[in-house]
Amino acid sequence: MSVLKVPTRRRGRPPLDSTYADETRNSIIWAGLELLTEKGVTATGIDQILRKVDIPKGSFYHYFKSKDAFLEEVISAYNNYFIRKLKKYFEDSQHLPLTRLRNFTEDAKIGMARYKFKRGCLIGNMGQETTSLNKTLRKKIEASLIDWEKLLEECLKCAAETGEIPSDTNCAAVAAYFWIGWEGAVLRSKLCKDIYPLKLFTDQFIANLACKS
Amino acid sequence: MSVLKVPTRRRGRPPLDSTYADETRNSIIWAGLELLTEKGVTATGIDQILRKVDIPKGSFYHYFKSKDAFLEEVISAYNNYFIRKLKKYFEDSQHLPLTRLRNFTEDAKIGMARYKFKRGCLIGNMGQETTSLNKTLRKKIEASLIDWEKLLEECLKCAAETGEIPSDTNCAAVAAYFWIGWEGAVLRSKLCKDIYPLKLFTDQFIANLACKS
Repeated sequence: MSVLKVPTRRRGRPPLDSTYADETRNSIIWAGLELLTEKGVTATGIDQILRKVDIPKGSFYHYFKSKDAFLEEVISAYNNYFIRKLKKYFEDSQHLPLTRLRNFTEDAKIGMARYKFKRGCLIGNMGQETTSLNKTLRKKIEASLIDWEKLLEECLKCAAETGEIPSDTNCAAVAAYFWIGWEGAVLRSKLCKDIYPLKLFTDQFIANLACKS
Repeated sequence: MSVLKVPTRRRGRPPLDSTYADETRNSIIWAGLELLTEKGVTATGIDQILRKVDIPKGSFYHYFKSKDAFLEEVISAYNNYFIRKLKKYFEDSQHLPLTRLRNFTEDAKIGMARYKFKRGCLIGNMGQETTSLNKTLRKKIEASLIDWEKLLEECLKCAAETGEIPSDTNCAAVAAYFWIGWEGAVLRSKLCKDIYPLKLFTDQFIANLACKS
């Protein structure tokens, strides 16, 4: 749920190599990620993002075709980061599958509290701002959520194999159910600035899954 | 989930009675409700709301002390409207309690589709914009959600009494779980412009509740 820190960028005259351009591009993407996760698309101007990484406004279109093209890259960066996180938890063979899910939710609680409940989930935040987003961006957000569903579905299939949940569980539907509700829990947690919605949602979700066995 | 139409207001010179002032005030609140539910707090200016009801900008502070005071009234208006809706469904003794809950979710699906998935829930939308909201507004939104939890808790207690769900169900926790996840379902439904998240969430939620019996 939490996002990485903006990578540090060298100040002063840009050196004449492509690594610098890549670094700068990445630093803009990560600064965007932080601000957009906190404030949302409508309340975040490109100039605010550029100020954060000390890059002149005129340079933006050197790196990105348009604000929408930039937002697409921010979504991709977040999704790649989040997929790595989910794989770390959901494929952690040292724990039983439902414990892996619980461990992910524990990490999210710590992440939300660390940023004083200001950040939450970029995908959930942007999904709320549908009037500010074009169809391509909406599809990209939906596709990210479907990536996460598939990763959880695999984890739940392991749970069904190991007997933690009934073998006839519709893992795809249950995984979709989790992410639908989880985004609600992150939203509520931001609202009340407390981890209890994340805890309540996780406890109920896991108890319901396990109750059938 | 859907909101009422803005009440029509007489045009021309205001008549010299207090009914007119009340009508005008209400029409501003309801226009605010519509726009805020669709676009959110950050993207909605007071002038846009006033244009919608054809009231000059200067009049706003005649009716409301500040934008925040106005937002408080909008939240109250939405909450009162929504409580009436919930009571209509959750206290409908013609149906079994879980059918009452399902009927509410069916109504929400129709409401979301009617407004082409642009509106959703004011409380969920505003809850997402925590950086734009002061503590009083956040508390008021949280209090609305707790009102809704209490109404569902009563409905679930009836379900426990009639044997639809186990008699030892923690109805307060399950009701909180419902609203946490339901706001996620409304969010997702707005994103993909489809009712399937509302349907999937409802089906899974009710199946899980009932599975224990």
